Amino acid sequence: MGYVPSPSYSITVRVEIENRIGMFAKIASAISGAGGDLGSIDIVKVEKGKIIRDITVNARDEEHEKKIIKALKHIEGIKILRVMDKTFLVHEGGKIGTYNKINVKGREDLSRVYTPGVARVCLDIKKNPEHVYRYTIKGNTVAVITDGTAVLGLGNIGPDAAMPVMEGKCMLFKEFGGVDAFPIAIRTTDVDELVDIIKKISTPFGGINLEDIAAPRCFEVEKRLRQELDIPVVHDDQHGTAIVVLAALINVGRILKRDIREFKVVIAGAGAAGTATVYMLLDYGVKDIIVCDRAGALYEGRTKDMDPHKEELAKKTNPGKIKGTISDAMEGADVFIGLSAPNIITPDDLKRMNPPRVVFALANPDPEIAPELAMPLVRIMATGRSDYPNQINNVLAFPGLFKGLLEVRAKGVDKEIFFAAANAIANIIKDEELNEDYIIPSIFNKKVAQMVSHAVAEKAKKLGLAR
Amino acid sequence: MGYVPSPSYSITVRVEIENRIGMFAKIASAISGAGGDLGSIDIVKVEKGKIIRDITVNARDEEHEKKIIKALKHIEGIKILRVMDKTFLVHEGGKIGTYNKINVKGREDLSRVYTPGVARVCLDIKKNPEHVYRYTIKGNTVAVITDGTAVLGLGNIGPDAAMPVMEGKCMLFKEFGGVDAFPIAIRTTDVDELVDIIKKISTPFGGINLEDIAAPRCFEVEKRLRQELDIPVVHDDQHGTAIVVLAALINVGRILKRDIREFKVVIAGAGAAGTATVYMLLDYGVKDIIVCDRAGALYEGRTKDMDPHKEELAKKTNPGKIKGTISDAMEGADVFIGLSAPNIITPDDLKRMNPPRVVFALANPDPEIAPELAMPLVRIMATGRSDYPNQINNVLAFPGLFKGLLEVRAKGVDKEIFFAAANAIANIIKDEELNEDYIIPSIFNKKVAQMVSHAVAEKAKKLGLAR
Repeated sequence: MGYVPSPSYSITVRVEIENRIGMFAKIASAISGAGGDLGSIDIVKVEKGKIIRDITVNARDEEHEKKIIKALKHIEGIKILRVMDKTFLVHEGGKIGTYNKINVKGREDLSRVYTPGVARVCLDIKKNPEHVYRYTIKGNTVAVITDGTAVLGLGNIGPDAAMPVMEGKCMLFKEFGGVDAFPIAIRTTDVDELVDIIKKISTPFGGINLEDIAAPRCFEVEKRLRQELDIPVVHDDQHGTAIVVLAALINVGRILKRDIREFKVVIAGAGAAGTATVYMLLDYGVKDIIVCDRAGALYEGRTKDMDPHKEELAKKTNPGKIKGTISDAMEGADVFIGLSAPNIITPDDLKRMNPPRVVFALANPDPEIAPELAMPLVRIMATGRSDYPNQINNVLAFPGLFKGLLEVRAKGVDKEIFFAAANAIANIIKDEELNEDYIIPSIFNKKVAQMVSHAVAEKAKKLGLAR
Repeated sequence: MGYVPSPSYSITVRVEIENRIGMFAKIASAISGAGGDLGSIDIVKVEKGKIIRDITVNARDEEHEKKIIKALKHIEGIKILRVMDKTFLVHEGGKIGTYNKINVKGREDLSRVYTPGVARVCLDIKKNPEHVYRYTIKGNTVAVITDGTAVLGLGNIGPDAAMPVMEGKCMLFKEFGGVDAFPIAIRTTDVDELVDIIKKISTPFGGINLEDIAAPRCFEVEKRLRQELDIPVVHDDQHGTAIVVLAALINVGRILKRDIREFKVVIAGAGAAGTATVYMLLDYGVKDIIVCDRAGALYEGRTKDMDPHKEELAKKTNPGKIKGTISDAMEGADVFIGLSAPNIITPDDLKRMNPPRVVFALANPDPEIAPELAMPLVRIMATGRSDYPNQINNVLAFPGLFKGLLEVRAKGVDKEIFFAAANAIANIIKDEELNEDYIIPSIFNKKVAQMVSHAVAEKAKKLGLAR
């Protein structure tokens, strides 16, 4: 990770500096000499002949952090008192908490929120089961659930180590959708157990967001929960990503004035995100998709490195029954969508594509092809990164998706709802704004969750999925 | 429920009143004539010749609410626009929510709390498993878990209807202990399943508070979880209550200058609270306890209405092998502790006790004997109610107990820790303050949780239960 100094490797160094002319210039030049990026500088204390400062520096990675500290240590007349890593600092004590919507300051409050008053609310829910949405947190709360088996790019790191990601996800639900979310990392990787446990702890939740569960297990877990629960269940690594890819592709169609269903699409990656994107595009009406995994193009009858879910994918894609490597598959493709691994395609592969060429290289942080290599060859390029135009990030989808589902107390979810979300995201960008470097809105655009939730709620009502 | 008008049956009536002299007096007299208790009066709007007011009235119960509304309707010149029930109002949308400890306003924040920065924190926890307490919510979060089988006095109302109580409990954790708590109502009543599910969802939690699980199942669930989990597990209906009873009894000893271990104690009720109180007192050193249930005194060899846990209780109590009714058991008792049902003992029973007589009649809201009948006969009386002196309420115990356990990242819990909590509660009251009507601190005394948590943390360290 990390090409350039990044705030995720930000350190704050507390230094005691002798009060002489030119000291700060020395510090600044030591930091820049070590390749660090100087951030905010605060005065902590001024003492006789000394000044204590907190100096924040962005580094590339941990090695780089150490190098910068070393450079500072060599300056005569300064003393390093403490090194604080901002990323770890914001994690101290966890990143989310609970709060009480009303204070419990006296007996009156207590008798309303707890005994004896609460008994009447319990009995009301007992009599009118739908009131659980009205009088409990269920109406605005989502569970963010993982088994810790496919966490970011880190793989199977287990439930404890997965928690910071789940808490981060909960923060995004709150920040972008105003949805309360609670993280649960389950200590099993067995499909039956996961399904059973999630069903039985579903009471407080109006929706379930599955997260970072390894493929192909994630398909089965989600499918069964959808059948057996009466609240929406969405594996975000699948559908969150697929919704945003579809949104971007819809806008590619608007720019190129082409029907996206006529595109010839190559998708690299048959994991959670790749598979969901294939099905999302097929359901949307895209007819010619070739899926590639490490063994090359998937086709019906392939024997190498198959499993039941790949058999299914092969049956539904690759109408031309193309065999061979990903380079072979790229021949004449209009769109390449990478949801796989770093640097798996080359400029020569891109040259085989049908101009004007559209490339979504979404492996993170290192894309399927470096943008610097791809950009001269393509008309439209998107990545998963924030440091290039067109960032495909599922934070555009899930907060608004669940916000909308909760608003109508949805009984479930459906591909039509995902399409509605994708269209809402695409349509945030007006015709006059749309261009090759702006096919997808910023993740910090607050209108996104609002528009998505509205579209989702309306669609759920039309489909009879609202309560 | 409800002898007197109570804020838990508070209604706010929005009325349109003709602007004439004497109208308000008519309203006030209609309310008091119907037995209602007039609360706050707010002006909503003044229109030509009319005034719209919100009038809050405390009622006894729902029937009484209706009677008050009816009385208001009969007044000429006023129109009822809306009736709002305050208890239901505070439950709208649920009573707790989540919040983000830092804002996610831009890419810098995002890259620290989520990808890519979060990956380093995950890997750190993977490498140093104890850091899950430091960098996730585990360090300050408790699960409040029920199966909905023994909720308040309402019995087996199921997980959905149990949620308002669980949320209320979470509020008390936050308000009194500063502890984050999250409610989970599990959709099974099978002991093996409950144990298995709770174990497997324990990752985010530094402690488990079991709540409102029916006896005798609750004993088994708690016992097994204590053996199989490495975080503290406390069934609050058992030990929360027992801790506060012990605290009150310790202060009875201080007032009477007697060693409480020498008291002859009769305990009515062999449910969760009764059983836990028996064991707490036995462990503390009280030697002569008789437990009574509906069938009378428990004794070794009794055959009527027994089960394995009652056999165990019978073996460890009733050294004199007293048989017969609760009235027989009361003969010569120093202390009566009721954790059972309304009105099961009489003034004659109390007269059989050994003066100066101590009665804790804790059935709620209607005690084992009405305080008006008991008080003339006893030196010290306590109830579970807020409208008499000496309220025994487990909110005095659980917030501080878990706060202290979390502070030391406790691996478990122990009776010695419960004793420490009981002593801390008792010692809040200084010698010069202690008297027959003040044996237990107010539940709104903020010092309680602080003192309890400190005592609990110290004891856990001494016992080697701190991490």
